[in-house]
Amino acid sequence: MTQNISYFIEVLGIIVFTISGAFSAMQKRFDAFGVLIIGFVTALGGGTIRDVLIGFTPVTWMRTPDIPILIFVTGIITLFIKNYIKNLKTTFVFFDAVGLGLFTMIGIQKGVVTGLDPGICIILGTITGSFGGVLRDILLNNIPQIFRKEIYATACIVGGVIYFLLIQVIDKDLSRVITISLVCGIRLVAVKYNLSMPKFYA
Amino acid sequence: MTQNISYFIEVLGIIVFTISGAFSAMQKRFDAFGVLIIGFVTALGGGTIRDVLIGFTPVTWMRTPDIPILIFVTGIITLFIKNYIKNLKTTFVFFDAVGLGLFTMIGIQKGVVTGLDPGICIILGTITGSFGGVLRDILLNNIPQIFRKEIYATACIVGGVIYFLLIQVIDKDLSRVITISLVCGIRLVAVKYNLSMPKFYA
Amino acid sequence: MTQNISYFIEVLGIIVFTISGAFSAMQKRFDAFGVLIIGFVTALGGGTIRDVLIGFTPVTWMRTPDIPILIFVTGIITLFIKNYIKNLKTTFVFFDAVGLGLFTMIGIQKGVVTGLDPGICIILGTITGSFGGVLRDILLNNIPQIFRKEIYATACIVGGVIYFLLIQVIDKDLSRVITISLVCGIRLVAVKYNLSMPKFYA
Repeated sequence: MTQNISYFIEVLGIIVFTISGAFSAMQKRFDAFGVLIIGFVTALGGGTIRDVLIGFTPVTWMRTPDIPILIFVTGIITLFIKNYIKNLKTTFVFFDAVGLGLFTMIGIQKGVVTGLDPGICIILGTITGSFGGVLRDILLNNIPQIFRKEIYATACIVGGVIYFLLIQVIDKDLSRVITISLVCGIRLVAVKYNLSMPKFYA
Repeated sequence: MTQNISYFIEVLGIIVFTISGAFSAMQKRFDAFGVLIIGFVTALGGGTIRDVLIGFTPVTWMRTPDIPILIFVTGIITLFIKNYIKNLKTTFVFFDAVGLGLFTMIGIQKGVVTGLDPGICIILGTITGSFGGVLRDILLNNIPQIFRKEIYATACIVGGVIYFLLIQVIDKDLSRVITISLVCGIRLVAVKYNLSMPKFYA
Repeated sequence: MTQNISYFIEVLGIIVFTISGAFSAMQKRFDAFGVLIIGFVTALGGGTIRDVLIGFTPVTWMRTPDIPILIFVTGIITLFIKNYIKNLKTTFVFFDAVGLGLFTMIGIQKGVVTGLDPGICIILGTITGSFGGVLRDILLNNIPQIFRKEIYATACIVGGVIYFLLIQVIDKDLSRVITISLVCGIRLVAVKYNLSMPKFYA
């Protein structure tokens, strides 16, 4: 995977997560500022928690001011064309899944670079991919969706495990592409067939 | 602005934020411990999030044990004279606005010292000024007020932008005084005329 | 207290906090993934907040991968034998109190090693002992129990104060054993006699 494609997908992932967050905030009648913040937190929250936990500070988005600008511009555009975007539901689910796959891979990579165990790297990938949504739900005063709805974080975990198996036998770049596709694919299948993890009640 | 005046206003800001937090907790029938914690989080939460994000650890209040003591004493006094303080609503709104202005300026300064971009510094100022209230609302299981009520965090952002414009043309100390006054002023005008940001619904 | 006993009690504390978290999640009909995450956060959340605040990163559990594995195994077992565990309520309250005492002592120690003031160390002990439960309640969208129910965090604070008094006059190891027992004892007495801190209403 070339650097450019990777960067392009990351930007797409951030845009989609921002839009997703902005819509959740509008459903709770937030003001313009609130909508932008929720978009920001949804897109960057997972990576921020990851950076804080491993001690990579100032956190990533503070070192790349283009990213916050991208998010604010995306958020403001979303406010103005919301009626149009709403109809793009399928496109939206697709990019969200792509973003999930890519963010998971980025998180795993950060863990590897930090010298952490594979199991911890998988946790970091899962946090990067799905905890922006957890922060979003906390700020919206909802129970986090990923604990009750279709398979989401579980796709990150499965992808992470497969990644560390794959790199034993094949090339790293190829392993990454497969992992990202796998996480994305599991998520899309889960949404299409409404698959969820077994629920428990005590 | 002399060091002494700055310190005096910071102490005032902390006291007011503590009282504000303590009252919110009492409205939810928290016990004495809960009231103190919510006071603490309201006063220091924003600065703590800022310190963690930029990697300034141990966080500021751990290096200045006088501050936690000030907060606990303020919290305990608040518990005992709550009926008297309730009538001070106007005074209260005023000091809260002063605290907002000062905390915003402190956050911006921290960002500058850390060598971060102006845009990121403005975000840090906004976090320092208004995210103590966000943490308070999360702990009280409320939707954060700053996303839906009168202009609050937006005052920090406007102040931050003006600050970075001002220092191009005038003295830094004067720029700071103007910025603090501006944030404080915007907030007071917003409360008086019940101004809020436009709301969006999707 | 020998290293082995200390380690044994810590493992027990983690197991009990994990089970406690898992049950809270099952009461909200979380899926299997959600139950494991809530167990994880309940057991390690307090220590994680402490590590982040003092800048001890990567946080402790990332350096000791055995701990996350212990938690996931405990969580999975809990899912399968939940009907049996439910009847162990008394045992459960006992180990939770032991865990509270030990986690408090661990947090105080970390603060001392980091060179922080006794007052700050006591706060760190309280965070380590009781903020895993706060994070759990936030994720479950509940008001944190420790702010309204029987004495919990207050036991940590009392224990911490006593610890710093004791080490002036007696041996450190003995001071630790007494502190852990005291926190544990206060908590058990509070549960047995349904003692809570005075509540305030504004």
